[in-house]
Amino acid sequence: MEWISNSRILIVGLGLIGGSYAKALKRLGFHVTAIEKRRSAVDFALANGIVDEAYTSVVGDVVASADAVIFGLYPKVFVEWIESYQQYFRSGAMITDVTGVKSCIVYDIQRMLRDDVEFIASHPMAGKEVYGVENADDAIFRGANFIITPTEQNTQSAIAWAQSMGRLLGFCHIAVLSPEEHDEMIGYLSQLTHCIAVALMTCSDNQHLVDYTGDSFRDLTRIANINDAMWSELFMLNREMLLRYMDIFSSEFLSMRDMIEKGDVESLREKMRLSTERRAYFNR
Amino acid sequence: MEWISNSRILIVGLGLIGGSYAKALKRLGFHVTAIEKRRSAVDFALANGIVDEAYTSVVGDVVASADAVIFGLYPKVFVEWIESYQQYFRSGAMITDVTGVKSCIVYDIQRMLRDDVEFIASHPMAGKEVYGVENADDAIFRGANFIITPTEQNTQSAIAWAQSMGRLLGFCHIAVLSPEEHDEMIGYLSQLTHCIAVALMTCSDNQHLVDYTGDSFRDLTRIANINDAMWSELFMLNREMLLRYMDIFSSEFLSMRDMIEKGDVESLREKMRLSTERRAYFNR
Repeated sequence: MEWISNSRILIVGLGLIGGSYAKALKRLGFHVTAIEKRRSAVDFALANGIVDEAYTSVVGDVVASADAVIFGLYPKVFVEWIESYQQYFRSGAMITDVTGVKSCIVYDIQRMLRDDVEFIASHPMAGKEVYGVENADDAIFRGANFIITPTEQNTQSAIAWAQSMGRLLGFCHIAVLSPEEHDEMIGYLSQLTHCIAVALMTCSDNQHLVDYTGDSFRDLTRIANINDAMWSELFMLNREMLLRYMDIFSSEFLSMRDMIEKGDVESLREKMRLSTERRAYFNR
Repeated sequence: MEWISNSRILIVGLGLIGGSYAKALKRLGFHVTAIEKRRSAVDFALANGIVDEAYTSVVGDVVASADAVIFGLYPKVFVEWIESYQQYFRSGAMITDVTGVKSCIVYDIQRMLRDDVEFIASHPMAGKEVYGVENADDAIFRGANFIITPTEQNTQSAIAWAQSMGRLLGFCHIAVLSPEEHDEMIGYLSQLTHCIAVALMTCSDNQHLVDYTGDSFRDLTRIANINDAMWSELFMLNREMLLRYMDIFSSEFLSMRDMIEKGDVESLREKMRLSTERRAYFNR
C-alpha cells in the first residue's frame, strides 16, 4: 500500500497517540476512521473534526474498507483484537501499531496473522503525561524519534511504508531496529527512567516540597505522573530487559554512594565528567 | 540596611548566579560592583553593562563601600574569603550568599564574623546547565523558589532584608527554613536528583541513543551535564543527609524491582498511583 491521497486509514484505539496520529493524517488529506469503545472519545473526535468517521464497536465493513490499520491499543488488548477480528481486514491491508514493547507481541501477531495482510511494527517515541484524544496533539511528533521494528517476515515495501508514515506524521529521525534491539533501548531509555521517577517521587510524603524545589526535581518527576495500567503492563512484558537495566543502574548508583561515603572525591568527579561527556551525545 | 535606590551592592564571584543577581539588581537601579578573579568574566560583565564596576582582586575600599555583599562563591572558598577579608566590610553591612549547602557553613561564618556586620544565608533555587556570567539570565528566577536560612543569631530585620531581596530578584515563593531543614530538602530535591541523573547517564556507552530516545530520558539526564568541581564539593558538605536520601531512594527502587521480578502487578500499580498522587502537589 502506498500513501496516496485517497488512502483510507483506520485507527483502532483513539487515545492520546491514536488521536494525535488521526489529527496529523486527516490534516494531510487522508480519510481517517476510528474505532474506540469510549463513547465520549468518539463524540469528541467527531465534534472536533479529528476523524472523518468513528465507531464505538468493531464494524466488519469499516475494518474491510481500510487500506491501513493503525493500532493504538495496549499490547495485550491489541493481540486479542487481532485474534478476534482479523477476518475483517481487506486483503493487502497494511497493519501497524504504536506499542511500547515489541518482541513479546510482534512475532505472535505475525504468526497468527493472515498471509494476505502484513504487520509492520513501529513505535513513536513521543508522549505526554495526559491521556485521551481530548489531549491529542501531533506537535509532539516534531523533532521526535520514530522506531520501526521489522522481522524477517516483513517486506521491504512494508518497511518503506512505515518510514513514509513516520515522515508524514512529522517525526525527525526514523530508525530501524530489531524487536529485541528496540526492547533493550526502551528498557533503558524509557522503562528504567519511569521506574526511577516513581521511586524518587515516593521517597517523601512531604506535601510542601513544591515551595522549596528547583527545576531538577520537577524534571526528574514529570513522568512520575504515570498511567499505572499501561506502564505496569509494559514493564511486565519487557521484564527481563527492564530488570537487567534496573540492576545496571543500581550498581552505578551504589558505586556513587560508596564514593560519597568514603569521600573519594576524585572518583566522584570522574563519574560526573563521564556523565557530562555522555550527555553531550544528546545535543543534536 | 534597607533596599533603597542608592544602595551599593557588591557581588563576590560573578558566575551564572552572581551574574544573574547583578543583572536583576542593576536593572532595579542599584549600584552593582563585582569582584571576580576571572579577567574575561569581568571584561564581559563591564562590556555588557551587567555591573557598574568590577575588579579581579579584593580591593579594600571597594568592599568597604558596599552596603550589602552577596557571595556567589563555592562554599569552601566563601568561608576562606570571610576569614581573609572580613576586616574590609563596612560596619553595618549585610552579607548573604547563594550557597547550596547551609548548616556546614552558616554557623562557622556567623561565629567568626565581626559583630558589626550580619550574615543572613539564602539559597536561590534556580540554575542552568551552563556556567559563567556569559550565561547570566535573571529570567531563571521568575516562578522559582528562594530559601532563607536564618539562625538564632540573625535579626528579624536581616530576615526581612533577605525576603525583600528575594522579591526584588523576581522569585515567586520565599521560604524560611532552618539550615538543617534546608540541607535535608536539598539532599532530597537537588543532590539526590543529581546523583540519579549521573548514575542513569553512566549506565550505557551507546553513542546512538539520541536516535531512539523520547523526552523522558532527556528530562532525567538534563542535569547529568554537571559541574563536577562544584557538585562534588556540595555533596561532601552535605554527605550525611545525601546518604540518608540515597538509601531511602535505593530502598524504594529495589522494592519496585522486586515487584517487577515477582510479577506483583497490584503492588506496582499501587506505587505508581502513590507517585502520581504525590507528583500532583507540584502543580501550582
